[in-house]
Amino acid sequence: MNSFSDFYKQTKYKVAGNGPRNIQVLKEALVKWDGQEDGDHYGKGKIIDEFQEKMAKYLGKEAAVFFPSGTMTQQIALRIWCDELRIKKVAYHPLSHLEIHEEDGLKELHHIETILLADKDRVIQLEDVVGLEEEIACLLLELPQREIGGQLPAYETLEAISAYCKEKGIKLHLDGARLFEILPFYEKSAVEICALFDSVYVSLYKGIGGIAGAILAGNTEFTEKSKVWKRRHGGDLISLYPYILSADYYFDKRVDKMNQYYLCAKELAEYYNQCHAVSTLPLKPVSNMFHVYFDAPKEVVEATLTEIYLETGIGLTSYLRVGNNVTTNYEVSIGDLYGQIPKEALRKAFQLLDEKMKDKLKII
Amino acid sequence: MNSFSDFYKQTKYKVAGNGPRNIQVLKEALVKWDGQEDGDHYGKGKIIDEFQEKMAKYLGKEAAVFFPSGTMTQQIALRIWCDELRIKKVAYHPLSHLEIHEEDGLKELHHIETILLADKDRVIQLEDVVGLEEEIACLLLELPQREIGGQLPAYETLEAISAYCKEKGIKLHLDGARLFEILPFYEKSAVEICALFDSVYVSLYKGIGGIAGAILAGNTEFTEKSKVWKRRHGGDLISLYPYILSADYYFDKRVDKMNQYYLCAKELAEYYNQCHAVSTLPLKPVSNMFHVYFDAPKEVVEATLTEIYLETGIGLTSYLRVGNNVTTNYEVSIGDLYGQIPKEALRKAFQLLDEKMKDKLKII
Repeated sequence: MNSFSDFYKQTKYKVAGNGPRNIQVLKEALVKWDGQEDGDHYGKGKIIDEFQEKMAKYLGKEAAVFFPSGTMTQQIALRIWCDELRIKKVAYHPLSHLEIHEEDGLKELHHIETILLADKDRVIQLEDVVGLEEEIACLLLELPQREIGGQLPAYETLEAISAYCKEKGIKLHLDGARLFEILPFYEKSAVEICALFDSVYVSLYKGIGGIAGAILAGNTEFTEKSKVWKRRHGGDLISLYPYILSADYYFDKRVDKMNQYYLCAKELAEYYNQCHAVSTLPLKPVSNMFHVYFDAPKEVVEATLTEIYLETGIGLTSYLRVGNNVTTNYEVSIGDLYGQIPKEALRKAFQLLDEKMKDKLKII
Repeated sequence: MNSFSDFYKQTKYKVAGNGPRNIQVLKEALVKWDGQEDGDHYGKGKIIDEFQEKMAKYLGKEAAVFFPSGTMTQQIALRIWCDELRIKKVAYHPLSHLEIHEEDGLKELHHIETILLADKDRVIQLEDVVGLEEEIACLLLELPQREIGGQLPAYETLEAISAYCKEKGIKLHLDGARLFEILPFYEKSAVEICALFDSVYVSLYKGIGGIAGAILAGNTEFTEKSKVWKRRHGGDLISLYPYILSADYYFDKRVDKMNQYYLCAKELAEYYNQCHAVSTLPLKPVSNMFHVYFDAPKEVVEATLTEIYLETGIGLTSYLRVGNNVTTNYEVSIGDLYGQIPKEALRKAFQLLDEKMKDKLKII
């Protein structure tokens, strides 16, 4: 029997992503290389040097270091700031990646205490930071806040938080896993956003669509320390070039498409919000991502979407999560695929979704 | 002006290694893949599952986990055993990779105390272990002991240490960065060697010649814990397949060549030992590797070898290290390239080396 994700896989069009994360992603990135170029060697060599310089320039920081993962970069960034300020405490959002997806690495490996700022269903505001009663070494801001659909504070809030942290001697770190994706909303360059932060992490396999890998950027003193920690963590591989070459290739291919993804996300969210018992969080996306909420149990949503996939050939999601009460939800991140769907077919799919949801919820 | 390593690069034949670590290494491993296969996803999927199962079987352990680096695997193995025995202390050789090449990750991240066993210029013997006065959770044995030219204890010593550790409740961990390479000397299978150890790390880019990556193997309870720590360390990448595919490809290509490499290493060491003021450590290699020592200052060795490279087209080493007093040394690891050198040319190169060393040392 086919599972829900099988039905999704068999659809002709998919609204989210850049396509399957298959081996072709790597093969495509390697086509232009004839093979005779030396790989990087323990963090040194042309390939890694050039990409790090390119990223440092793009982010407007003195230096940048390539890491195998964001998990590694962020723990290290916080550790460096804690050691520098001799305060083993940091603050971040209750749904930060470090708090919920890293098996407590920050605590288990670095013994850093964390303060959870703000309610989990909203972004951190200036008042949360000003209201901090304990001394912290570093504040981490995740832009956008992924686990609540990718929400953002106002740019003025960022500026105010940055100024406040500077005044108080608190280091400000950017979890910019999706930094490229928010630039169109803020109408700012990466340099302008990053200037508000002491250290910056960006991911190279989300909007950019590389295979894996991350960049940590800051001043040279900071990045040099991060290289020592990279070795301690076991991240200073003899060669990282498979990730670097693909990060570089897909950066060039997609970094200028972020506005397109953003506009598409807003359009798609509108389609969803016109459907009965369906809404998006945020209502108006501020990046290429948002969450979709159905006021209906999982079985109903699964049956409905499966019908849509079979009748229209358009796949909306490969999975469903059960939320509070009877809601069902999933995440959508727009990439290259959205633009390939015939507009009329998409419109019809959502008309169908609206009708089906009305029907199904009448029956219950 | 050309540097010594430039002269080496320009030689037609090179005695060590499998060839340049260039992008072709990755491209070659990908040829057989048409690209449509899904990559691994956070430690799951066909590609990683199958390779892990293959390695578990090869090593004779219940389970195996693919890691981006050996540094990560070994710290994690020691941490798991320390936590299990509630003793934050381990023992290993004074020149263990963990002691000298990892920026003290074991201490900085895991707060594990280390006891250095044996003098640094010999391998660990049973008496060293029996003589331990403090309680330890785990003993790490590196086979072969790389920093002293790749030396090995007798197999009976391994058996005796293993039995002693079992009796005393000490966990025994194998740093098998070069495990494949020592099997011909011991005339044992990997399963037989690994059966003496509770946990085993092997590297996939040394004799095997992959791009990066390591395997940690043991019983399932142990490997499941290692996956949690892998995530904490930032090693649970969304995709590791570039390393897995190349590890698998080069494993199949080279694992049965280890005896050939071993025989070649012994032959090459004999050539060296016939030269004036030159000797190898160990005198008779017990794997594909050894160190070469010149009783001469670096400038003399550099000048001599450069002449050999230019006159014979045979490259012996790309670098030189200054040892104690006036000795100069370097490491040699045999791979695929050795077999491509015409025997007569190689013999002549060493005849020349012998003559030149006699001449040069007369002049001094």
